Amino acid sequence: MRILGDIIELHQGGKIETMLKHPIVNKEDLAKVYTPGVAQVCEEIARNQSKAYELTTKKNTVAVVSDGTAVLGLGDIGPHAAMPVMEGKAALFKQFAGVDAVPVCLDTKDTEEIIRIVKAIAPTFGGINLEDIASPRCFEIEARLRAELDIPIFHDDQHGTAIVSLAGVLNALKVCGKTLAQSRIIVNGLGAAGLSVAKMLLKAGAIELIGVDRHGAISRDMEYDNPHWNELAAMSNPHGERGALSEVIRGADVFIGVSAGNILSLSDVQSMADDRIVFAMANPVPEIDPVIAAPFVRVLATGRSDFPNQINNVLCFPGIFRGALDCGATDINEDMKLAAAQAISSVIDPADLNEHYIIPDVFDVRVVERIRLAVMEAAYRSGVARYEPLVVSDVH
Amino acid sequence: MRILGDIIELHQGGKIETMLKHPIVNKEDLAKVYTPGVAQVCEEIARNQSKAYELTTKKNTVAVVSDGTAVLGLGDIGPHAAMPVMEGKAALFKQFAGVDAVPVCLDTKDTEEIIRIVKAIAPTFGGINLEDIASPRCFEIEARLRAELDIPIFHDDQHGTAIVSLAGVLNALKVCGKTLAQSRIIVNGLGAAGLSVAKMLLKAGAIELIGVDRHGAISRDMEYDNPHWNELAAMSNPHGERGALSEVIRGADVFIGVSAGNILSLSDVQSMADDRIVFAMANPVPEIDPVIAAPFVRVLATGRSDFPNQINNVLCFPGIFRGALDCGATDINEDMKLAAAQAISSVIDPADLNEHYIIPDVFDVRVVERIRLAVMEAAYRSGVARYEPLVVSDVH
Repeated sequence: MRILGDIIELHQGGKIETMLKHPIVNKEDLAKVYTPGVAQVCEEIARNQSKAYELTTKKNTVAVVSDGTAVLGLGDIGPHAAMPVMEGKAALFKQFAGVDAVPVCLDTKDTEEIIRIVKAIAPTFGGINLEDIASPRCFEIEARLRAELDIPIFHDDQHGTAIVSLAGVLNALKVCGKTLAQSRIIVNGLGAAGLSVAKMLLKAGAIELIGVDRHGAISRDMEYDNPHWNELAAMSNPHGERGALSEVIRGADVFIGVSAGNILSLSDVQSMADDRIVFAMANPVPEIDPVIAAPFVRVLATGRSDFPNQINNVLCFPGIFRGALDCGATDINEDMKLAAAQAISSVIDPADLNEHYIIPDVFDVRVVERIRLAVMEAAYRSGVARYEPLVVSDVH
Repeated sequence: MRILGDIIELHQGGKIETMLKHPIVNKEDLAKVYTPGVAQVCEEIARNQSKAYELTTKKNTVAVVSDGTAVLGLGDIGPHAAMPVMEGKAALFKQFAGVDAVPVCLDTKDTEEIIRIVKAIAPTFGGINLEDIASPRCFEIEARLRAELDIPIFHDDQHGTAIVSLAGVLNALKVCGKTLAQSRIIVNGLGAAGLSVAKMLLKAGAIELIGVDRHGAISRDMEYDNPHWNELAAMSNPHGERGALSEVIRGADVFIGVSAGNILSLSDVQSMADDRIVFAMANPVPEIDPVIAAPFVRVLATGRSDFPNQINNVLCFPGIFRGALDCGATDINEDMKLAAAQAISSVIDPADLNEHYIIPDVFDVRVVERIRLAVMEAAYRSGVARYEPLVVSDVH
């Protein structure tokens, strides 16, 4: 752990900057980059709006949009305090995938206003990464923007976590010689991330999946205030099981926690099936202390960098946007998310898979390129790619 | 003039990009720039919001905001087609003054919505450069944002033009041995730029100034639909003169056109006082052909780069924002604008002034630094500087 001063020092003046692709050193440069020459470029786009993808930064630029209401584990700290996270995200976009990203921290928590603002600024951007927006408004904002805009919208807190979790689960099951379809899976914590994790697992083939929250298992014979819980209940928990976590976890092959620290007891873990898989992803304190749990589980993953198998969404967002931008995707749909998860898990050769290596390192250079290709292919297949298959970015 | 292909080629993929100030090459870097280390920085700002000026990009970042309704001479071409101008502006901000600027092109023309959006995105930015927004909504938007936000708001089309014009007029009067207070001045064209030019000249000491539009001289004994005309009429044209341009221009020492091509005749020019000064700034076609007018005027200026004395607002906006950001100004007020104009004119040594050299070259490296110092001093004197006088940016 670095000392505070070191990190504060690094943040002086912020972490990103705007740079020119071509320096302006004389009047001829000026007349091309700015008036009068630039008018020709404006007219070209005014005649054919799709030229904006060719002649402006739009095709490679993502807005990282937050209202600062659910920042890391810190909660509603406001748009100013959210900036370091959004700048960090922008830095990662560029470093890992060559994507130009711009923080946009909003001084409003109003769902309709956030939707209106993002729609209004959309001409400037090739995609929108929603970040650290509190539940449940994050669902409405993402759904409406996906429906009403023709650029990809991606709420990383939901789908980034879900995609990387699925990638890890797919490999963990291989290590244990199990399959998604035959496994009993508990997803504990049904906020934004947990709901997306559950839906991704179902999309990938899980059947006996039970979502659990503070009130116990979510079951289709119940009616919940939260419409997203009703939606999940209808597609999961096929036998309509009820009860607390300690009850439904019995015999489970996989536990995925996106909930809170220390809510999983060792006896809960011991009640699971053999060759059990535990993803304790609450941060910074996992659902169960990894040191205590490790001897009793076959595969253990956390959100922390100081244990093996870190489920880190840095593995996903650079590559998924790289792929979406490179094919001019109008959406990041479920097929593309599933393709991204499979791509991440495929980076590790089956011969190399083991209990402590189910997920690639974030600095593994194969990750972004694998995701990019898989996401582009899924986009073409599902008909959401704007460019012809041969026109790919020269960023890579 | 370069060929179209050359300019289009230069614009492939846009003109600016996002760069990292510190590369992220290992897990230690990642843990500092992003989670978990970044949480400490967020908490620091959550405790004390003014730390955002120290620990994020806010203090050096300006949004270049446009609705694409009055782009160059092209008019309402929309937010996508406006992007090349905003990117060009962002490139100039960085190249000339080290300011990080981000285009924000808006898909709305609604005054109230534009105000709401800019207020909502303001936490991200240290200043807002409004650009190419049609009159009259540009006035309301700028006035409201100046009143309701604590960061500098500057509509460059109005004030950039006004500041550089005033700088040129001050030096042109020196060449002619005249003063602002004793000169008869005609400002022709009372749109956004013309109104700002007229007010800046009055602020700087002009008395016998007459604003003229299509309907003739603006006079205080008349009532206009446009409230900005009534406001100008009340502070100008002291003798309540009426009549068309050809009438009121008689005996004028200075003509400033921010109007339309070829509306000034040679006989109009010849009716002016001796040692006359003509600023024919309509673009691309000036109010009178400079080749025809030149033999009959003492000092001639245009908006074009192919004649001497180009009135180019690239001379102003980088320096005025550099100064405003470096002292943490909460506003760009009239004192700061006047200081910027005087700073620009002061770059040329009085001994070097002549009919063909009243305004510095845009690549003169003294310009930005002169404006910066003058603007900071004016900000401190007028009480709008956030930082202590000794805390200046290390960008320079």
